[in-house]
Amino acid sequence: MSKKVVIVGAVAAGPKAACRLMRLQPDWDVTMVDQDSLISYGGCGIPYYVSGDVSDESELRATSFHVVRDENYFEGSKGIKTMTRTRALSIDRKAKTVQVENLDSGEKQDLPYDKLMLATGAKPFDLPIPGADLDGVFSIANLHKAIEIKSRIAKGQVSKAVVIGGGAIGIEMAEALTDLWGVETVLLELAPQLLPRIVDRHMADMMKKHLKENNIPVYTQESATELLGNDEGKVCGVKTTQRTLEADLVVMAVGVRPRSELAREAGLDVTAFGGIKVNQRMQTSDPEIYAAGDCVALTNLITGKEMLAPLGSLANREGRVVGDNLAGIPTTFKGVLGSFIMKGFERCIGATGLSYEAALAEGFDADYALTSPPDRAHFFPDQSVVIMQLVFDRKTRRVLGLQAFGMMNDSISVRVDTAAALIAKGGTIEDFGLVEMAYAPPFSSAIDSINAAAYAAENMCDNRLRRVDLDRFFEWMTDMSIEPDWAVLDVRHPLESQPYVEKYGADKWFALEYGQVRERHEEIPTGKTWIILCNAGTRSYEIQVFLDHLGKSDSMVLCGGTNVISRLEVEWPIS
Amino acid sequence: MSKKVVIVGAVAAGPKAACRLMRLQPDWDVTMVDQDSLISYGGCGIPYYVSGDVSDESELRATSFHVVRDENYFEGSKGIKTMTRTRALSIDRKAKTVQVENLDSGEKQDLPYDKLMLATGAKPFDLPIPGADLDGVFSIANLHKAIEIKSRIAKGQVSKAVVIGGGAIGIEMAEALTDLWGVETVLLELAPQLLPRIVDRHMADMMKKHLKENNIPVYTQESATELLGNDEGKVCGVKTTQRTLEADLVVMAVGVRPRSELAREAGLDVTAFGGIKVNQRMQTSDPEIYAAGDCVALTNLITGKEMLAPLGSLANREGRVVGDNLAGIPTTFKGVLGSFIMKGFERCIGATGLSYEAALAEGFDADYALTSPPDRAHFFPDQSVVIMQLVFDRKTRRVLGLQAFGMMNDSISVRVDTAAALIAKGGTIEDFGLVEMAYAPPFSSAIDSINAAAYAAENMCDNRLRRVDLDRFFEWMTDMSIEPDWAVLDVRHPLESQPYVEKYGADKWFALEYGQVRERHEEIPTGKTWIILCNAGTRSYEIQVFLDHLGKSDSMVLCGGTNVISRLEVEWPIS
Repeated sequence: MSKKVVIVGAVAAGPKAACRLMRLQPDWDVTMVDQDSLISYGGCGIPYYVSGDVSDESELRATSFHVVRDENYFEGSKGIKTMTRTRALSIDRKAKTVQVENLDSGEKQDLPYDKLMLATGAKPFDLPIPGADLDGVFSIANLHKAIEIKSRIAKGQVSKAVVIGGGAIGIEMAEALTDLWGVETVLLELAPQLLPRIVDRHMADMMKKHLKENNIPVYTQESATELLGNDEGKVCGVKTTQRTLEADLVVMAVGVRPRSELAREAGLDVTAFGGIKVNQRMQTSDPEIYAAGDCVALTNLITGKEMLAPLGSLANREGRVVGDNLAGIPTTFKGVLGSFIMKGFERCIGATGLSYEAALAEGFDADYALTSPPDRAHFFPDQSVVIMQLVFDRKTRRVLGLQAFGMMNDSISVRVDTAAALIAKGGTIEDFGLVEMAYAPPFSSAIDSINAAAYAAENMCDNRLRRVDLDRFFEWMTDMSIEPDWAVLDVRHPLESQPYVEKYGADKWFALEYGQVRERHEEIPTGKTWIILCNAGTRSYEIQVFLDHLGKSDSMVLCGGTNVISRLEVEWPIS
Repeated sequence: MSKKVVIVGAVAAGPKAACRLMRLQPDWDVTMVDQDSLISYGGCGIPYYVSGDVSDESELRATSFHVVRDENYFEGSKGIKTMTRTRALSIDRKAKTVQVENLDSGEKQDLPYDKLMLATGAKPFDLPIPGADLDGVFSIANLHKAIEIKSRIAKGQVSKAVVIGGGAIGIEMAEALTDLWGVETVLLELAPQLLPRIVDRHMADMMKKHLKENNIPVYTQESATELLGNDEGKVCGVKTTQRTLEADLVVMAVGVRPRSELAREAGLDVTAFGGIKVNQRMQTSDPEIYAAGDCVALTNLITGKEMLAPLGSLANREGRVVGDNLAGIPTTFKGVLGSFIMKGFERCIGATGLSYEAALAEGFDADYALTSPPDRAHFFPDQSVVIMQLVFDRKTRRVLGLQAFGMMNDSISVRVDTAAALIAKGGTIEDFGLVEMAYAPPFSSAIDSINAAAYAAENMCDNRLRRVDLDRFFEWMTDMSIEPDWAVLDVRHPLESQPYVEKYGADKWFALEYGQVRERHEEIPTGKTWIILCNAGTRSYEIQVFLDHLGKSDSMVLCGGTNVISRLEVEWPIS
């Protein structure tokens, strides 16, 4: 028996649910409603459209076979009706109707439904500061905004830009403006780090340094207080807590909030942070109404708590689950880990699960292994270092998260995605140590970086590997009096260690090459708390084990070694 | 209390176990014995040494910090004694001694042990054909052989080569000889396909075609019957079942067999195929004797059966488990999936778990989903098609294996490694559909290829997607009389379909573009069994669902579409 289904929102989750449903129930009457004229687009591709990597906006709305997904496409190819420029105003759950308004004609009508889906998405958060409504101030609310930004740049109207917000979209937009167009772009972030709540600070700081190397000034812990305009009402500058910046374009990328007013006003359950509540079948508190995409609250697979995860990939997967359930197939969407990846010029940063800070905040007995292995066989050409941070619970040995920073290739995806697969299955450090990464020298190491990270975590749990706190070490490097007993034991090659011995004095920086330690360990001065340092941290760990064996058990390893430090901005570079 | 440990074999598993053990039990007395002078090398890197990607053989024996791992390194840096050029002759399990012989002096001695480890590796299988002992005939038995091959090429002594054996090493060696050195190289394989028992035939055939495009003649189902020599005793040709080939170098890469004579003669349990039997703690049938690496039989995690998996990466992981157990830490190595990956010129092929053929042979209710999605967002520059084959059990919906073929980058690793993580945890099609791949357009699609493969598998299990047997379709394409009712329904763009309609006639090749099917389906002739064809198979599936809905339910989809066919050698190309 044919049913009427109305879907509010036609960007990602909505069309996915509609198409899946039509394949399962070809007789049903499915209508999508969207307030925009452009629908079914890859919003995550907007920075690449602005940068010119994607030449035309229609490519973001096209299938792999270059057919644009507009109303005609959905009608002709999928049998789905679409009402664009049509806003859903309210839901009458008793009468089972949605009142909609055509934004051009102003005409209103009630659409009856047997089942309803809300895929209303999220809207960018606009900073409530003076000047936010000036001409030239944009948020990435939809494709129209992107088209206008690109059009202004292409017309030569933009020479200086400020991007407010150092999350993924902010960084991608800053790159897009700088890289192809040569727009002088400044990136502002209120938090002390880029990518806050996504990765830990030192991981984010590596991307920050790389952005600066690519001529993007990055100001963290600094917020915009006012946008300045000229006489014509156009933006011309940004006042921050620290300075005034010139700008003829301002991009606000300070996060999004779920569009859940329609749901709330209809009396559906909505979380305090605005996400529509759904069960694993993506059903709202009204069993006839489903919801998916950026507007819903999802369950974090590690903490079990509700969270927002506005991402096109999740929206698509949730949408398919809605399609199944609308059709009567009881499929479930279990939750999310928050897998994340992004390109920043020649680098890539990715993560899944909880950061160390987040894990501590959630009450886990959290710790992390910081390593810096090669991304493929160390003897293979083009191999490069990847910085990996594996977050785990010391008590249960469960892995809670993985973060990685490296070159712009797929090597970060390899480890982040494998980690996500294992973490979702409750993977422990042992599972990570054994996971069978396909090996050949052009692709991986005999002991893959993810296995090696697990080995380090295991050694930490068993108290064989003790790390120095990175922040504390950095503080000490700028003021050695705060830990008067500390000294560096540098086990690198003498060519690498000698400049530091000369700079800091053998009292604070003692060099003894790794291969010499067994033979000459008696030369190591007593009465020191040694911070053992090498390039990657692995040789330091071996020396720690050896010193422990000699009864000198208060040493600490600088995990990840100089590979980590050389990727950070510090005043006392160690390369 | 210090214990004496003797380790026979010092290439991969042996040194890994020794080093791990010394970190856990720094007081113990550990001796490695190896019959070779060169130890602890990355054997998997040999093709890249021969090709010149790795310039010096010592790089294969060096740490990431360019220190060569020889006897002095193990003694000085690790506290491990190493006896090279020393062969283990026999084990006296009662006396707990190993008799060894110095290959230079001929001197024999008995080494006492508390615990013994066998890491005796594998030796290449030599084809028992006339001429196998001629000068210029090599197997990749060890680093010395590789050094000699490269030396001959560098001296200009090699202009034509034949590689016997189309497994990973054979293909890699053929590429190495051709690519840098311009040696005219022919590849022979006895089986009907390259990479037999590793991937299914059509997957291997894509690599075969690519090798041919790179000027390597590949002869499958053809074996060498005799190696021909000149008056000086040098090889000058290869006689096969089909032809005679000129060659001044012959590389035999026809597999390896475990070196388990020492174990067998000592009365330890050895499988019929020669692998030393071990439990999950890598203990042989004598609890004081451990074994690891290419010489042992491992448990297949899917079938539960014993198998060989001679790979440096596994040897290292097994070695670490032996190190733990020797030291008294009860770590386990649970088994293997047989994860595999390799480069062939500009392409990459990888796999994990069971192939379709292997799954059928094991009695599974096996089927496979063959897909050809883009490796990243289809609108992103440099995206390319990846061919994926997901093997599953229809009854339990458990995923049994994944194979993938694509461009030479890490995109195959991403999917193969994620699959291995899930399969090892008993992952089902549903798990594959939900696995949270990190998404951004430069790295993946909103619906990642691995999710999409699972969706296709699900649709097959639910009988919504029915595939045509690829081999049967190929037979039909060369002789359409074998299935007189069959006809192709080509739903591609008319520019793509028209040439085929003209070639085969509308009776056998009917074209109706995807977007027109809903409107014009009545034009589709009746009385045919339709093979629905498009570029990737996804639109074909939608048309199948639509035809089913119309009651025309005997159609079959050409899964993977023309993306698959254009990567195969066929006499009736469809591009």
